[in-house]
Amino acid sequence: MPTSEIKNDLFLRTLRGEKVERPPVWMMRQAGRYLPDFMKLKEKYPFFERVQNPELATEITVMPIDQVGVDTAILFSDILVIPQAMNCEVQMVPGRGPVIPNPIRKMSDVEALITPPAADALDYVMKAIKHTKQVLDNRVPLIGFAGSPWTILCYMVEGHGSKDFSTAKGFCFSQPEAAKALLQKITDITIDYLKAKVAAGCDVIQVFDSWGGLLSPADYNVWSMPYMNQIAKAIKPLAPVILFGKGCWFALNDYKAAGASAIGVDWTLSPDKARAIVGNETVLQGNFDPSKLLSPIPVIEKEVKAMIDGFGPQHYIANLGHGILPNIPVDHAKAFVNAVKNYRS
Amino acid sequence: MPTSEIKNDLFLRTLRGEKVERPPVWMMRQAGRYLPDFMKLKEKYPFFERVQNPELATEITVMPIDQVGVDTAILFSDILVIPQAMNCEVQMVPGRGPVIPNPIRKMSDVEALITPPAADALDYVMKAIKHTKQVLDNRVPLIGFAGSPWTILCYMVEGHGSKDFSTAKGFCFSQPEAAKALLQKITDITIDYLKAKVAAGCDVIQVFDSWGGLLSPADYNVWSMPYMNQIAKAIKPLAPVILFGKGCWFALNDYKAAGASAIGVDWTLSPDKARAIVGNETVLQGNFDPSKLLSPIPVIEKEVKAMIDGFGPQHYIANLGHGILPNIPVDHAKAFVNAVKNYRS
Repeated sequence: MPTSEIKNDLFLRTLRGEKVERPPVWMMRQAGRYLPDFMKLKEKYPFFERVQNPELATEITVMPIDQVGVDTAILFSDILVIPQAMNCEVQMVPGRGPVIPNPIRKMSDVEALITPPAADALDYVMKAIKHTKQVLDNRVPLIGFAGSPWTILCYMVEGHGSKDFSTAKGFCFSQPEAAKALLQKITDITIDYLKAKVAAGCDVIQVFDSWGGLLSPADYNVWSMPYMNQIAKAIKPLAPVILFGKGCWFALNDYKAAGASAIGVDWTLSPDKARAIVGNETVLQGNFDPSKLLSPIPVIEKEVKAMIDGFGPQHYIANLGHGILPNIPVDHAKAFVNAVKNYRS
Repeated sequence: MPTSEIKNDLFLRTLRGEKVERPPVWMMRQAGRYLPDFMKLKEKYPFFERVQNPELATEITVMPIDQVGVDTAILFSDILVIPQAMNCEVQMVPGRGPVIPNPIRKMSDVEALITPPAADALDYVMKAIKHTKQVLDNRVPLIGFAGSPWTILCYMVEGHGSKDFSTAKGFCFSQPEAAKALLQKITDITIDYLKAKVAAGCDVIQVFDSWGGLLSPADYNVWSMPYMNQIAKAIKPLAPVILFGKGCWFALNDYKAAGASAIGVDWTLSPDKARAIVGNETVLQGNFDPSKLLSPIPVIEKEVKAMIDGFGPQHYIANLGHGILPNIPVDHAKAFVNAVKNYRS
């Protein structure tokens, strides 16, 4: 279904570099735990059932369109479906997060990983995309996403979430050949996966480098950027690609050089500094501190205006600087979205 | 005991802005879990007993001087002795880290906190300093440290370690008056505490803003920097002050303006960018990625040289960009220290 038929195409026009009437707005993790209807499904179905059941994934994906009024949907899924497709078991343990019972620790572990055609191995994702597109009925575009190879490696090697992923980093620094082989395998299947997602109906792709900010700029250019680059180059002929690295303020110009249609920034970089780095013509996305949605609504409104003033209303997608928190009142999330929609310079 | 009598005063001369024969070197958390002798004491004595017993604290503080060859000692202690002195209970739970059973959540909680004279409430720290100075016998200087008020607030409000300290941030954003009252109370007792530490014999003070990088630059100027400033201004007439904020690359010039004798940087800021921000005459400290100590020794040596080349050998203190990790082999830590000592440009 050609994206030109989408009724609210503000997000797509912004990604094409066009001038628009106001910045589009969405929120990372907008299909998530701050929504009471999501919590009802969360109580009923385990995490990966919600991800794998196309009807459930669709229902969750569409929720914030109807309930919060964002300008794009993003498919409810998880970055760790990729290790699962590679035959690396991932469990989601309530209260603890992802757990990989058999983490990757040596070259033979890497060699044992499979890279099947993603459209087959992750067929349920493609079904969820097709079903979501039907239910969305062209109201707004649909984003599909993947984790960066570096971020996926972090989980596959560490075996669970971590403050510093020092085991994963130690693996790279002490077994660089095995680490690079793993990154390339993840990259190959991720490219295949994202191509299949676009073919299934995703209008835009976002790559999340959630743990890129744990690397020094020099190491980022060894362990993350080359693989982000491969993905961006493979996907951008098919769909706009948004690159977002948490804490990766030092990589913005690398993302630009990779051909990103938009670049995500978090709140540790001020809007004016971000603009100073990439210039006024590059589309930036971000960067409201998710915790700030706990402020009183008038403060949220004031700070959203300051954020848009900082980035400028053109070539800009309003968003949070990271995922929305579970304890945000829904009316605060709505206040964020409405403050963008009501923006006047 | 005047610091001019200290035999290895390389660190102090560097902090005074003098030109030196090579960069001094130490490692954050150098008195810690990578040392087998530390682990023996850890098995025998609970955390706060090691902190509170002056003989144990001294033994741990002196260990890396003898065993790794660093150019300064840093008193073994914990930033959370400050909440304890304020009558806010802190437990150290093995495998989980610090736990505050009754976290601060409202103005009346803040009002209930006491601010006794630190020299009395934390008398055991003063005893540990005096004992350490005796045992060090003027071989190297002794650093005393404190957490920044913002970082202390994070723990006191959140109640435990956290990836994002969103409860603590939410407290600030939703109850700003209570948060500011808490920050001021922490600041007042911290200044009193650090003055007492200098009086007891500490030659240098370092303030750790471990969670400063969770704030946007604009919020940093509201919730952290004003209190760092108060501390720096109060202590710098008495001893050199090193300011270090993890992830606070955006605050380096604020630290400089606060009169810091040296500014710590982590590895997410490249040495040349750090120099570009503060100039060549400001003393910088850092910034080796602690995980990189898992690299083979020849790689460590090569990367240490590149780091010193990047900062330049003058007005520079070689250090890690954060605390040394428990799984670092001692000979890798020694290789780091020796690579600095053997540096030739």
